[in-house]
Amino acid sequence: MARAAVLGSGSWGTAFAKVMCDADTTTTLWARRPEIAQAISQRRENADYLPGVALPATLLATTDAREALSGADFVVLAVPSQTLRDNLAAWVELIPPDATLVSLMKGVELGTLKRMSEVIVEVADVAPERVAVVSGPNLAKEIAAEQPAASVVACTDPARADAFADACMTTYFRPYTNDDVIGCEVSGAGKNVIALVCGIAEGMGFGDNTMASLMTRGLVEIARLGVALGAQARTFAGLAGMGDLVATCASPLSRNHSFGQKIGRGMSMEEILAGSHQVAEGVKSCRSILDLARKHAVDMPLTEHVERVLYEGLSPQAMVASLMARERQSEAIPH
Amino acid sequence: MARAAVLGSGSWGTAFAKVMCDADTTTTLWARRPEIAQAISQRRENADYLPGVALPATLLATTDAREALSGADFVVLAVPSQTLRDNLAAWVELIPPDATLVSLMKGVELGTLKRMSEVIVEVADVAPERVAVVSGPNLAKEIAAEQPAASVVACTDPARADAFADACMTTYFRPYTNDDVIGCEVSGAGKNVIALVCGIAEGMGFGDNTMASLMTRGLVEIARLGVALGAQARTFAGLAGMGDLVATCASPLSRNHSFGQKIGRGMSMEEILAGSHQVAEGVKSCRSILDLARKHAVDMPLTEHVERVLYEGLSPQAMVASLMARERQSEAIPH
Repeated sequence: MARAAVLGSGSWGTAFAKVMCDADTTTTLWARRPEIAQAISQRRENADYLPGVALPATLLATTDAREALSGADFVVLAVPSQTLRDNLAAWVELIPPDATLVSLMKGVELGTLKRMSEVIVEVADVAPERVAVVSGPNLAKEIAAEQPAASVVACTDPARADAFADACMTTYFRPYTNDDVIGCEVSGAGKNVIALVCGIAEGMGFGDNTMASLMTRGLVEIARLGVALGAQARTFAGLAGMGDLVATCASPLSRNHSFGQKIGRGMSMEEILAGSHQVAEGVKSCRSILDLARKHAVDMPLTEHVERVLYEGLSPQAMVASLMARERQSEAIPH
Repeated sequence: MARAAVLGSGSWGTAFAKVMCDADTTTTLWARRPEIAQAISQRRENADYLPGVALPATLLATTDAREALSGADFVVLAVPSQTLRDNLAAWVELIPPDATLVSLMKGVELGTLKRMSEVIVEVADVAPERVAVVSGPNLAKEIAAEQPAASVVACTDPARADAFADACMTTYFRPYTNDDVIGCEVSGAGKNVIALVCGIAEGMGFGDNTMASLMTRGLVEIARLGVALGAQARTFAGLAGMGDLVATCASPLSRNHSFGQKIGRGMSMEEILAGSHQVAEGVKSCRSILDLARKHAVDMPLTEHVERVLYEGLSPQAMVASLMARERQSEAIPH
């Protein structure tokens, strides 16, 4: 039976550890805080991140990374994106020599603009084909509730993709394999900005046409960036692209969405930030995505307009007028 | 100034005639019923199909097809899909020799399994490059309310696509051109079945992951059919594909959606049909789509399962279990 270490006990790490147990993979969840590891071992619950979800009796939990990683075939990384570099550095010596390293994380590293798999390859000093990525329409709370969902396991080594997909397939979680790691990661990083602009539109009172138009044109510009970075265009029409984007933009639970709604209703960044302790991911990543786009001479009108609304005082009304007045063009979907 | 005849005064025909007027195109709307033409001319309202929407003062309305078609550069067809053949036959002699024929209609003709543009080419006996198609996330009510939306104008003749896009571009309606008529039409025909399956999932209590997974895998199977019929795969990632599908699946106004919800809550086809006078489009077109798929040896698991639920007594629960238990595979997105 395959063995997995899931490193990071936030909501997605915990939900994914449950998925792997349910797929009959021997799974150990590493938590930074002893009280979380204890509560999982003793009460089968992670009350901070997945309250009310009964975790499998087979799920092991520990704060000892050595224990978690010992004999692991799969090392599943689920720490906050911006802490990956430091966390992974501490674990590198403990990772079994042929283990597959799997990223559940999204976004790009601030400063370096590197994707999560690039950080992994660099810090763990492993060949890129040992790194896989899981991405798709996978809101943790719904996965934990065993609602049916599909997802992508991407790895340039098809045998590793298959092995990991087998290790996480259950009656409610259906992984599809793909060899395009770059495409899956660029989708995951770009979608938050589009969720933000959908939120803005909803805050302004617009309905399903506007949302769907923004999602579609948003995905086209993300795909354009992805292709410039080496991705396959078709990945963006898949579960890690369209699937994740649609789930994120539709979910009222998404912080990007609710942040955008407040902007659309006329609140300023400062007013919103004064009233909340967490910044939406799209607010943070917007400028990194634009930096990447400019570096590769890719046109991303929606992302650019969001940046102007957030940081340059453009009103949501002026944003809409400016977007709609752009010169007419062909769809020009990358392929 | 360009002249357009919009033939058909249902909600989409009427809303689109408003768009064309707002784009400064001289537009005449043909209505079958005199009271509708009169009410538009006198009160600027189509109370049956777009109640409360103030139509432009420049919009002309008539029941005389000869008057509507005289001097038209664009002949915009917006009659019910299954009546197109008969309606168009009566108008053929009145269509100006170089006019572009534009289809606003979706679905395939029952019996022949022909797309709307194929019916137009056949009945009007025109070259395929004279036929254009408009498709996208365009719920008529929201367009009539001037909410921002994007759409596709597809024509194999790029000059005609450009000319028609210019004739319908406004501050709230943004057409993108595309040369893939087949892709736009197959998307529009296939989406209703996917909206039905999303409704079923919602009726069963599932949330955003499930919806987004179904939409994405649904679009993959529609794209597969499209490519077999000669479409370009990338069109399905665009506004007529993903855009229209997302708007249709998200809209609580959609009949496919609400029909599906009732099925998902355990009602039978007979019970639902007994309580309503209109059948959802996806219920009617499901078998036509499957016939096309079988003819071209295309695998469409979602459409097949919907057919089994609707017509063969498969329970929604058994449908979900069967779909999730299919052999694991790669994403295999057509490209």
